[in-house]
Amino acid sequence: MIQKLIEKIKKTNAPICVGLDPMLSYVPEQILKEAYSDCGETLSGAAEAIWRYNRKLIDATCDLIPAVKPQVAMYEQFGVEGLKAFQKTVEYCHEKGLIVIGDVKRGDIGSTSAAYAAAHLGKVTVGTNAYAPFDEDFATVNPYLGTDGIQPFLDVCGEEGKGIFILVKTSNPSSGEFQDRIMDGRPLYEWVGEKVAEWAGSCMEDSYSNVGAVVGATYPEMGKILRRILPKSFILVPGYGAQGGKGADLTHFFNADGLGAIVNSSRGIIAAYKQEKYQKFGAEHFEEAARAAVEDMIADIDGALRAAN
Amino acid sequence: MIQKLIEKIKKTNAPICVGLDPMLSYVPEQILKEAYSDCGETLSGAAEAIWRYNRKLIDATCDLIPAVKPQVAMYEQFGVEGLKAFQKTVEYCHEKGLIVIGDVKRGDIGSTSAAYAAAHLGKVTVGTNAYAPFDEDFATVNPYLGTDGIQPFLDVCGEEGKGIFILVKTSNPSSGEFQDRIMDGRPLYEWVGEKVAEWAGSCMEDSYSNVGAVVGATYPEMGKILRRILPKSFILVPGYGAQGGKGADLTHFFNADGLGAIVNSSRGIIAAYKQEKYQKFGAEHFEEAARAAVEDMIADIDGALRAAN
Repeated sequence: MIQKLIEKIKKTNAPICVGLDPMLSYVPEQILKEAYSDCGETLSGAAEAIWRYNRKLIDATCDLIPAVKPQVAMYEQFGVEGLKAFQKTVEYCHEKGLIVIGDVKRGDIGSTSAAYAAAHLGKVTVGTNAYAPFDEDFATVNPYLGTDGIQPFLDVCGEEGKGIFILVKTSNPSSGEFQDRIMDGRPLYEWVGEKVAEWAGSCMEDSYSNVGAVVGATYPEMGKILRRILPKSFILVPGYGAQGGKGADLTHFFNADGLGAIVNSSRGIIAAYKQEKYQKFGAEHFEEAARAAVEDMIADIDGALRAAN
Repeated sequence: MIQKLIEKIKKTNAPICVGLDPMLSYVPEQILKEAYSDCGETLSGAAEAIWRYNRKLIDATCDLIPAVKPQVAMYEQFGVEGLKAFQKTVEYCHEKGLIVIGDVKRGDIGSTSAAYAAAHLGKVTVGTNAYAPFDEDFATVNPYLGTDGIQPFLDVCGEEGKGIFILVKTSNPSSGEFQDRIMDGRPLYEWVGEKVAEWAGSCMEDSYSNVGAVVGATYPEMGKILRRILPKSFILVPGYGAQGGKGADLTHFFNADGLGAIVNSSRGIIAAYKQEKYQKFGAEHFEEAARAAVEDMIADIDGALRAAN
């Protein structure tokens, strides 16, 4: 799957993904009104609203970008109905040729991790049939439980040709509480990075591995170190835009070949119409605001990468 | 919620929970056959089978135990249909008066963690209505992202009177890869334990906190240390039975008041009929085998606690 992602990044010249993290407060009034009128002010109405919102966002940006990253929590909060909208979103993105990175941050052990891997990347067998329940292309995974938690994902990646991004250094302010603690002279995130490099080695697909890392845009210096520790892994970089990361901070996340990183923006794109810069589009043209924000993000990163080389 | 759990533990004299982690391979042939005949060899058929299996297990054990711990991955692997079965299971356990510990191991940051907390313990607002999507009583949470990931759960626990168990030292063989690493002279799990104690302090409900810790039965010496670090927290102890933990290993997880721990067994109970010891019940009476295994587990732990005092 990493080669498919690379191909699409090269084609679009856009090492970015759009975070489909639809909070109800982002969804324009008109869409909410119509969805509630059709389905009531219910979980089903909320799910319908975020699905309609997503569909317009996807239609407006899919030719510019290689991938999307739906955050499953934003769907799970609406229960079973929300997860139906998640599934529909994944399917629709695939129809539109987009790669889907399921931001699920799952992590457990043994047969439980295997069940999560099957749910999101693989297949489950029921009697004589096999089904791919959510069928994302990549999933994010939490490393706290060690190899027992990761191996079932590696197995499924091998079988299905899919990929994972393992949390190494997250973008949030308190990520250092545990991740930056020094052990044997090096912070935990470096030790996790070393382990990710080892796991990545077992999942190579040509020049890159199907096993990547999550490193926040908000920590560029740490990104520089992890780039060296993980030469064969893609780094999924959240925290661009709304969380404070800028194009110029991102150059160290890339390899000399111009590849190796994919930068995510969620709110900065999907709720762009709420920013002063894109206000002119208005809520009724929120998807055009999103498109403009995608174009600006691509230009910002491209400019930063050119300036650095 | 912790006081409700304590009350139920005292009433049943059973500091245990049954892990409702229904693998299809545990479900007796007859139930599978009927479910597939009604719903086909589909995700919906699989979900129906695990729901019917769960219902019989709950009916057969609910008077003996205070709580159950469904592992959401085992439902999520069957997609939306599986999550419907999860929801039905939680509702049915509540009808039967059981406390439900959702083993979801979620963990993210900010608004995302808030969405998970709302999904599993709290409520979401849709228009003028509020809904509790999955409505468990406790949820398990991953600490890797630090306070930013935990605070939204603490907020919901405060608002809704619910609780969480934070992963500290997990039961699996490779849990030491990161959790045992020494930082400033102490292993990571102790530092996580110290932080859990701090979070627990902000969520007290009388003598105990609504914030507990997960510490595997397979590491009794570490349980002893964490018991001291976390005097006001309940410890959720997985790894009893099938994973190798025994009653005699568990005494250190309890406080001098006889409280402070709740021990989980999953496969050892719900698939007891597959063990030599309970074979006489046969697959057709799997729920009676589960009941006998619950009785034996309670006696084992009670005996160990009496011997230690």
